[in-house]
Amino acid sequence: MTEIATRVYNHTWKIDPIVRSVLDTDFYKLLMGQMIFRRHRDVNVTFGIHNRTSRVRVADIVDEGALREQLDHVRTLSLSRGESTWLRGNMFYGKRQMFSPDYVAWLENFRFPAYHLEKRDGQYELTFEGPWLETTMWEVPALAIINELRSRAVLKDLGKFELQILYARAMTRVWEKIEFIKSLGPVNLADFGTRRRHGFLWQDWCVQALREGLGATFLGTSNCLIAMQREVEATGTNAHELPMVYAALADSDAALAQAPYQVLEDWQQDYDGNLRIILPDTYGTTGFLAHAPDWVAGWTGMRIDSKDNIEGGEEAIAWWQSRGQDPTQKLIIFSDGLDADEVARINTRFRGRARLGFGWGTLLTNDFRGLAPDGVLDPISIVCKVISANGRPTVKLSDNPTKAMGPPDQLERYRRVFEVGAQAERRVLV
Amino acid sequence: MTEIATRVYNHTWKIDPIVRSVLDTDFYKLLMGQMIFRRHRDVNVTFGIHNRTSRVRVADIVDEGALREQLDHVRTLSLSRGESTWLRGNMFYGKRQMFSPDYVAWLENFRFPAYHLEKRDGQYELTFEGPWLETTMWEVPALAIINELRSRAVLKDLGKFELQILYARAMTRVWEKIEFIKSLGPVNLADFGTRRRHGFLWQDWCVQALREGLGATFLGTSNCLIAMQREVEATGTNAHELPMVYAALADSDAALAQAPYQVLEDWQQDYDGNLRIILPDTYGTTGFLAHAPDWVAGWTGMRIDSKDNIEGGEEAIAWWQSRGQDPTQKLIIFSDGLDADEVARINTRFRGRARLGFGWGTLLTNDFRGLAPDGVLDPISIVCKVISANGRPTVKLSDNPTKAMGPPDQLERYRRVFEVGAQAERRVLV
Repeated sequence: MTEIATRVYNHTWKIDPIVRSVLDTDFYKLLMGQMIFRRHRDVNVTFGIHNRTSRVRVADIVDEGALREQLDHVRTLSLSRGESTWLRGNMFYGKRQMFSPDYVAWLENFRFPAYHLEKRDGQYELTFEGPWLETTMWEVPALAIINELRSRAVLKDLGKFELQILYARAMTRVWEKIEFIKSLGPVNLADFGTRRRHGFLWQDWCVQALREGLGATFLGTSNCLIAMQREVEATGTNAHELPMVYAALADSDAALAQAPYQVLEDWQQDYDGNLRIILPDTYGTTGFLAHAPDWVAGWTGMRIDSKDNIEGGEEAIAWWQSRGQDPTQKLIIFSDGLDADEVARINTRFRGRARLGFGWGTLLTNDFRGLAPDGVLDPISIVCKVISANGRPTVKLSDNPTKAMGPPDQLERYRRVFEVGAQAERRVLV
Repeated sequence: MTEIATRVYNHTWKIDPIVRSVLDTDFYKLLMGQMIFRRHRDVNVTFGIHNRTSRVRVADIVDEGALREQLDHVRTLSLSRGESTWLRGNMFYGKRQMFSPDYVAWLENFRFPAYHLEKRDGQYELTFEGPWLETTMWEVPALAIINELRSRAVLKDLGKFELQILYARAMTRVWEKIEFIKSLGPVNLADFGTRRRHGFLWQDWCVQALREGLGATFLGTSNCLIAMQREVEATGTNAHELPMVYAALADSDAALAQAPYQVLEDWQQDYDGNLRIILPDTYGTTGFLAHAPDWVAGWTGMRIDSKDNIEGGEEAIAWWQSRGQDPTQKLIIFSDGLDADEVARINTRFRGRARLGFGWGTLLTNDFRGLAPDGVLDPISIVCKVISANGRPTVKLSDNPTKAMGPPDQLERYRRVFEVGAQAERRVLV
């Protein structure tokens, strides 16, 4: 029973596409996309790739032709009928019709816009310029493609059994982490690992392993395609690009200071419940919380992303208490540099003091550390960020200056406006 | 591209057969079979299963109906045309036509004879009575079936991912052993793991892993079917059943004392070169070597099977020297309780002092120790031995009294005839 047809079919592909669907992206891109669709269709932005792990010369590893082929393939994609049906008919965060018919109609006609690619100093400069609504869609597939091409470049030289053992070891590692997390008692956890994944099939495997291993405490995946195909929840809320663009568009320092809260005001017109999660760190968490209007404290929860997780959690709880809120009713989502031991550390500290959720990313879907010689499969800290909006540079301060971005004069201005003093540097693991 | 046909085809099997070919057996069964075919077609024997790991109540684990189905399936097998062609045309041990046309013709018509099965004290009494030529063929498939049914009984309760991780761990373990052995320098090694294998597919995987991992120093597999399908060497020589039957048929103590040498006299009429491997331990190695005629010292090598491997190797070397032979030209084959560390220990001791060969069995193809709770997948020491010949009980003394078998009065007689004194007990691992 040789599967002749399957084999012949597979060999007719000119390439082995990494991203095969518009929905092979993170759920928050669609939530943010709808918000942009409703309010900011006229805004033009530029997104750009940045590899923080500069010692890994990605452009020396990943062939430019292969990269172009993958990016070009993405530009041929469009939403399929079944995918559209899922977006229209599926329940997200307990709610039907999360996406309005006009936004889904727009998405049906959406095609990925052009990209600009060149090599510089062993890295790729990959940028996307155009309407925010369109370019924002590139973030996740562009990152997933670069990461998977890097994996493939290493794997192509391995023997059949070396490959099998590589995956056997990686699977065992993920499973042991899951068993460890299970041993902690109920821990609500979702996969946030699309952008930095080792590969699509690997992320798909990880999601299924989490589902079998954790059962009811597995919250779902940020990946829309996998959520649809595996029939699990799609998870995610919003990202730094919203305050970064709002801030860049502000016409005065006073408007700049208000921009992060303006994001939340707009957001809560569109989304409620567990989607009202504050991401406070874009221009420093402490200042953000100090100046936040009281209605912000009424939101469901907060995501800790660039502060030490314990510190960030304590600060959130203290702030809610200072605003007369009951932290045990609040949801804290941890999503920065998580691995099983860090989940345990956080869980031990905060269990019972707040509702906890964990968005486990790179070290779930790309923990191949040490599995290939010289760490050539170790994950890298690569991001795709908005770098300008309507011609003005965007700025991020973050709680960790290692993650800051923007031109020096603007960084100085933002630090002044947001009253950000000295910050502790923390090594960015992934 | 769903493989509908494959799926439908697979579902038409009433059972999932473990042994699917007459050749799914060890090569030495055919070499011995041909010798029996030429000289002992009138001898009737009984083979019987014995589980030395009596704490594992196999009959409580393996369903009797399932066992009967598998044994009955073996009785439907016959040599296929391609298999027959392989036996006739393939080169074995560097020689064409190892098997004479009349023996292959006999094998083409061979069907497995009846079996007798009952439960006693949590164990199966499984015996095969009839012509030696036929019943000897049951040894390996009977053992492989019981071992694999035991595996399946455990595995059927595992989830899909638990199963995947189980095999991921087992694969990683095998591969790490292979990498370790490779690090020792050139080590000639063959798979001897058919009878005690975890399962057929697993043995097949192990053989392929050895081939990729070891390259030229991988000598082949004892399993004829896998040797044929994977195009590797079929390996093996002879076993205790030959001296045991010859001894049982001896009509006097004097004839009994000569029986083990009579085996070798017959064997060397049929086989030469690397097939002339002495198996000296059936009635005690020391006495066997002391009384061996000089021509026995002219044989190519010796297999160490029930003595401590270092002790056995030293004894072989000293004996060859005492007979004026050059040990560096001799081949010592180690096949008892081997694992990677034991291979290293032996190799360190004897490298350069003799040619070395390793027949790696149970701990290659069934090292699932600790991979399931309570060690339910740990291998057991189960054997299928000839227990009588022409109505007379057979006896084995071995170098390790734990492995001795036979009625007490006969054990006493054999010990007297073969001048076997006190022996050190060694725990039988596998």
